[in-house]
Amino acid sequence: MCRWLAYFGKPVRMDKVLYGPQHSLIEQSLHSRLGAETTNGDGFGIGWYGADGTPGVFKSMEPAWNDRNLRDLARHIESHLFIAHIRATSGTAVQQTNCHPFRYGKWLWAHNGVVHDYANVRRDLLLAVDPALFPLIEGSADSEVLFFLALTLGLEADPPAAVARVIGLVEQIGHAHGVEFPFQGTIATTDGERLWAFRYSSEGRSRTLYYSSDYDTMRAMYPDDERLLDFDQSTRVVVSEPLGELPGMWNEVPESSWGVVQPGRGELHPFRPAVPAHA
Amino acid sequence: MCRWLAYFGKPVRMDKVLYGPQHSLIEQSLHSRLGAETTNGDGFGIGWYGADGTPGVFKSMEPAWNDRNLRDLARHIESHLFIAHIRATSGTAVQQTNCHPFRYGKWLWAHNGVVHDYANVRRDLLLAVDPALFPLIEGSADSEVLFFLALTLGLEADPPAAVARVIGLVEQIGHAHGVEFPFQGTIATTDGERLWAFRYSSEGRSRTLYYSSDYDTMRAMYPDDERLLDFDQSTRVVVSEPLGELPGMWNEVPESSWGVVQPGRGELHPFRPAVPAHA
Amino acid sequence: MCRWLAYFGKPVRMDKVLYGPQHSLIEQSLHSRLGAETTNGDGFGIGWYGADGTPGVFKSMEPAWNDRNLRDLARHIESHLFIAHIRATSGTAVQQTNCHPFRYGKWLWAHNGVVHDYANVRRDLLLAVDPALFPLIEGSADSEVLFFLALTLGLEADPPAAVARVIGLVEQIGHAHGVEFPFQGTIATTDGERLWAFRYSSEGRSRTLYYSSDYDTMRAMYPDDERLLDFDQSTRVVVSEPLGELPGMWNEVPESSWGVVQPGRGELHPFRPAVPAHA
Amino acid sequence: MCRWLAYFGKPVRMDKVLYGPQHSLIEQSLHSRLGAETTNGDGFGIGWYGADGTPGVFKSMEPAWNDRNLRDLARHIESHLFIAHIRATSGTAVQQTNCHPFRYGKWLWAHNGVVHDYANVRRDLLLAVDPALFPLIEGSADSEVLFFLALTLGLEADPPAAVARVIGLVEQIGHAHGVEFPFQGTIATTDGERLWAFRYSSEGRSRTLYYSSDYDTMRAMYPDDERLLDFDQSTRVVVSEPLGELPGMWNEVPESSWGVVQPGRGELHPFRPAVPAHA
Repeated sequence: MCRWLAYFGKPVRMDKVLYGPQHSLIEQSLHSRLGAETTNGDGFGIGWYGADGTPGVFKSMEPAWNDRNLRDLARHIESHLFIAHIRATSGTAVQQTNCHPFRYGKWLWAHNGVVHDYANVRRDLLLAVDPALFPLIEGSADSEVLFFLALTLGLEADPPAAVARVIGLVEQIGHAHGVEFPFQGTIATTDGERLWAFRYSSEGRSRTLYYSSDYDTMRAMYPDDERLLDFDQSTRVVVSEPLGELPGMWNEVPESSWGVVQPGRGELHPFRPAVPAHA
Repeated sequence: MCRWLAYFGKPVRMDKVLYGPQHSLIEQSLHSRLGAETTNGDGFGIGWYGADGTPGVFKSMEPAWNDRNLRDLARHIESHLFIAHIRATSGTAVQQTNCHPFRYGKWLWAHNGVVHDYANVRRDLLLAVDPALFPLIEGSADSEVLFFLALTLGLEADPPAAVARVIGLVEQIGHAHGVEFPFQGTIATTDGERLWAFRYSSEGRSRTLYYSSDYDTMRAMYPDDERLLDFDQSTRVVVSEPLGELPGMWNEVPESSWGVVQPGRGELHPFRPAVPAHA
Repeated sequence: MCRWLAYFGKPVRMDKVLYGPQHSLIEQSLHSRLGAETTNGDGFGIGWYGADGTPGVFKSMEPAWNDRNLRDLARHIESHLFIAHIRATSGTAVQQTNCHPFRYGKWLWAHNGVVHDYANVRRDLLLAVDPALFPLIEGSADSEVLFFLALTLGLEADPPAAVARVIGLVEQIGHAHGVEFPFQGTIATTDGERLWAFRYSSEGRSRTLYYSSDYDTMRAMYPDDERLLDFDQSTRVVVSEPLGELPGMWNEVPESSWGVVQPGRGELHPFRPAVPAHA
Repeated sequence: MCRWLAYFGKPVRMDKVLYGPQHSLIEQSLHSRLGAETTNGDGFGIGWYGADGTPGVFKSMEPAWNDRNLRDLARHIESHLFIAHIRATSGTAVQQTNCHPFRYGKWLWAHNGVVHDYANVRRDLLLAVDPALFPLIEGSADSEVLFFLALTLGLEADPPAAVARVIGLVEQIGHAHGVEFPFQGTIATTDGERLWAFRYSSEGRSRTLYYSSDYDTMRAMYPDDERLLDFDQSTRVVVSEPLGELPGMWNEVPESSWGVVQPGRGELHPFRPAVPAHA
């Protein structure tokens, strides 16, 4: 159910990252190896930050693998920070409003995973969204509601704390509906300056998540790989599954963790859902 | 914003009704004369009843005028009862889940009009939907929520009463949000045996609605019109705007009215919203 | 590259054949086992004959697996003869005009396979199409041109002879362009009364093709399988790959063969391309 | 049938030109005033040159007016030279491969108009395309074939001469098929450095074409119009119909003319088709 990729670092033509690698995200849309589904053909989306700091979004309900617009746009747009997502629906409609990344102001949000028994908890989750944000919900996917819950619970001020509250709330509401393991998945979110990634599931067996090694280390290991010249020390890529099989290139984000990519040194921390205040 | 057509009567190939007439519904998708918009190109849908009494639905987010699938299906499917709808969005996304007619069990529902200031009243309207029906809401259009409110408020038992309650509720919630004229539009709904149509707006200037004259009368007026041979005494068509300009063929449904088409004699009554019980 | 299914026999709701079986065609769109590609998500089409003997066609550029229109139409349309096709493009655009089955008058045509080095032979193949038929070519797929070549070379009079001429011509033109093995694939074609199927490739290792066993034999083998009650002695299904794993149910069409399904007894013959007259 | 816009000059966010004006191209997709059709909803396309001089292309078969991707891309891509086109088909399929602008190497091409009786002359026109270019033809629109004929007949060396040859050929072939007035329309083409525009029809009553006035003149006339600040002396816009009603802003390209926009001074010349050499 879905794969995503988040790029942070030296401005680069997006196709270098999306199409270039050996096992690229676009190739994963046809042949994912680590996903719950091998095919992620129920739409895709890409959100990128331009020179002015605001994100653009391009979405389609068609499969990514043969999409000519995506190929052309990726070839002609350069960005220092972007999120791409390919979708395999767990049941909700195949439509642009269910494609990731979701956007609010300068924020983007992508999710791979599922709120279990979503049909039954959806109403309660929607009720927890700030009524002022409610009119902005356009699709029917759980991932979009998670985003608006995060905005409701403080995403703009403190993303890790807000996501902890969202997942705590999802678990509380899920348990109240008899769902044993309410949340599953990985999340990427960014305000255009920093990039946060989360890996967590209620059952402790979460969807996979990887981040690229330090640039200098990669250059030392692969001094002849010309593709690395497109990037630099500021570059970090976070992905649902590795984009290739170069040993030493990809590192697994540990179970129940969150990390932040930012100018300077990134961080990696344990993740724990927050119990809602009124619980 | 939107045009619809409902056919009841002798089984007929659907293209005879959808494409045949002088100013057909498909032609109205490009050149509506009486609509709020001249172009209704933001998707379409058709729902029809087959021999077994259950409705099929075909929807598309593309304009109807050049849609080859619609043309082919209409040419190859015969039905005694069907609703077709062409959409001009008032802002919500162009996607199949926002296309009419909406379906629940054996019921179909189409709407032309608008819940004014929908973004602000949407949350309250959604809260009024039976939680057991709530998971079935897939789109973001006001019309779909009206349908699920009608189901919540008794559509299956007494359609005119249920629609009166829905519109009463919409007016109550709208007024509470400072909306002067909350509801505008026409509605078609059917269970496969009878067809109900409604024309009402809070300001008393509702979208147009017409019904075809009695078959024998038409035959007497136009004995040489061979197109009439496809129909018979059981036939009645209800439309947002006339399908042609034959004098005597189309009759306006009066302002604030509802009617029912059924085996035997149809009926036409005044319509008044019902004030919700706890108001 | 593509999978297809052709049904002949007792009128049946199409979903019984398309969605019902264990390894249905729709399931094959996500997980083909014997195809050149595991995913067939570049559009689909279905053509069916109704009571009046003319074929209807429904096509989409989206994947079949989550297409709600296909599911609904298949559930509401009954037919005694239909062809369904799911596409995996070998490079030409994903668009409805490249989806199978192609139609001309009462004829339908579907193809799984490829004209090798098509870009280079396309012009010569197009030139061999009857100029009177030429304006009807709408897409860019090799399969469509094969169909119009067949019509040019006598499909309506003698399908096996016409297909032999088409493939003979493809091989002649291919060889002239230095293509070692010009043709690969299987073909289904029908006039609404009989159904012809072909399996052939220039290299003698053709795409797979199967036909269902005789109905009485199946009933004897599986007396408790209730799904068989939807069919009868007139039923025969021809498929790119088996729809399930019941032993004895599916028989491979031999390499380099053609067969015809018709009222009464079907036939199976060796297939050999015909050398064009002026060669 | 179709409207287009070509922008040349100071790099600008494309939405300033596509959405900003009073009667913008996007608004023309719903309500064209001077077109053969008021609605241009059968797909659209945009081609733009980036910093590296190569053109990107984004196309869709959906109407432009509610397309969110177009709006977002236009808001996030800046370009000094771009062509946008909205389509109203004269019969050929609504699909991306029929959307303008067409691209070959660094060239773009857009057309508004029609080759009359195209079904009958299409084969002869296709035969006149250089066989080496032939495999690149993907759609079924006359406009695409005109482009490949222009490339065949010297577009890259001398655009005005090549277009004169193309239209001369179209007229010759048309006349041979009994078509009185074979060509109708306007054409825009560019190599990323200069922009050529043509207005011509065999009957001498061509589709409209306009170009914007000199920037200094406009600034002098409208010193308070802040929208003009996005542009400068290098800016020139060529359009099927004016983008607004400011007196003095738009000048009609005379009947049977061609012009070129380029660094420095533009030119405007009479246009005459060239009689093919072997005529």
